[in-house]
Amino acid sequence: MDLLGIPTVRVFAFWYLVLVIKMLVLIFRTSVARMRSGTFSSPEDYASAGLERPATVAPNEDVERARRALQNDLESILPFFGVGLIYALSDPSLTMARIVFAGFAVARIAHTVAYLRGLQPHRSIAFGVAMLCLAWMLVVGLWTVL
Amino acid sequence: MDLLGIPTVRVFAFWYLVLVIKMLVLIFRTSVARMRSGTFSSPEDYASAGLERPATVAPNEDVERARRALQNDLESILPFFGVGLIYALSDPSLTMARIVFAGFAVARIAHTVAYLRGLQPHRSIAFGVAMLCLAWMLVVGLWTVL
Amino acid sequence: MDLLGIPTVRVFAFWYLVLVIKMLVLIFRTSVARMRSGTFSSPEDYASAGLERPATVAPNEDVERARRALQNDLESILPFFGVGLIYALSDPSLTMARIVFAGFAVARIAHTVAYLRGLQPHRSIAFGVAMLCLAWMLVVGLWTVL
Repeated sequence: MDLLGIPTVRVFAFWYLVLVIKMLVLIFRTSVARMRSGTFSSPEDYASAGLERPATVAPNEDVERARRALQNDLESILPFFGVGLIYALSDPSLTMARIVFAGFAVARIAHTVAYLRGLQPHRSIAFGVAMLCLAWMLVVGLWTVL
Repeated sequence: MDLLGIPTVRVFAFWYLVLVIKMLVLIFRTSVARMRSGTFSSPEDYASAGLERPATVAPNEDVERARRALQNDLESILPFFGVGLIYALSDPSLTMARIVFAGFAVARIAHTVAYLRGLQPHRSIAFGVAMLCLAWMLVVGLWTVL
Repeated sequence: MDLLGIPTVRVFAFWYLVLVIKMLVLIFRTSVARMRSGTFSSPEDYASAGLERPATVAPNEDVERARRALQNDLESILPFFGVGLIYALSDPSLTMARIVFAGFAVARIAHTVAYLRGLQPHRSIAFGVAMLCLAWMLVVGLWTVL
């Protein structure tokens, strides 16, 4: 039983892991933005960072932006694990699989960059490309299991 | 190695993909509610929609409701991918697998509909039914791997 | 085709299911905190709980804390399903797999406990240990599929 021996599953696993690294970088970046701006969500974090907790905490725009980008990742990259795996197992052509996996991954990386820099319509285009790739995998997967 | 050739995995993959489609519809609906009400979370989105950004952005109830429904999906449907796959691989009866997969999926679809329309106790009942189906898969899965 | 017959996949499945139970307990705890404090996010929930909806709903600290802990789970435990499965399939030593899976799971349980009780630096340490375990699986997985 060698699931990772199937070429399409192997390509899928590679791009999925790349996207998880991307998410971890974003999580790290959010922490850095919190520390730099001194904006924490829990009272004990202020003491931990050697700061006094202000009476009212105004949300910091850098932190909120990184959080929104990460939330968008949760809504796209996490469903991708299941959809991509089912698609990879549905015996697609290796070339097509390479295109949609790389297309999804590159579009999601571009989405994060565009989100953090506030670039529109780049962010919407990146979101749309990733969605099209995901929709393709979904349709092929559904067709296979029906 | 034909994972999708296992009948229970096939049934599982079908319902998982149906639920991802449901999530994508909800994501699309949230975007539509944002555009209709002119409520965006990032400043650059106002320019992109040809609107001027108001000084203070009041959260729009339709947008927030769709967001809460989606957040609830993230907490239920995403863990379901792992739990359902492990359960499907644990050699359950095909009839039982069909019942809990379809039960979970239909209950989650009903949950979204009830959430968007503000229907209680329908939403809580749908949530509970989905949780019971998930708990069943979890217990059978845990029993198998122990 | 017996995926759950692979010892490392079996160990992985066990710890993943334990972590989903942990998430479900946290979801349940959030509901209890909502009901105890009478803090709901949707208007219809007040009627459902036999309460009148206040004009302005102040966020309740217990509810918000449980929500933040759960959000952190979504960002760590859900990516773990994919990363852990790929790692388990990459033919690692069973001893090492046991260590990183149990290490990740115990650290994430400790993270939730520390979050709910407001304990720092315990929470950050638990977060870091879980991230190191995840990073290890990621690197080994990536090495295998490259």
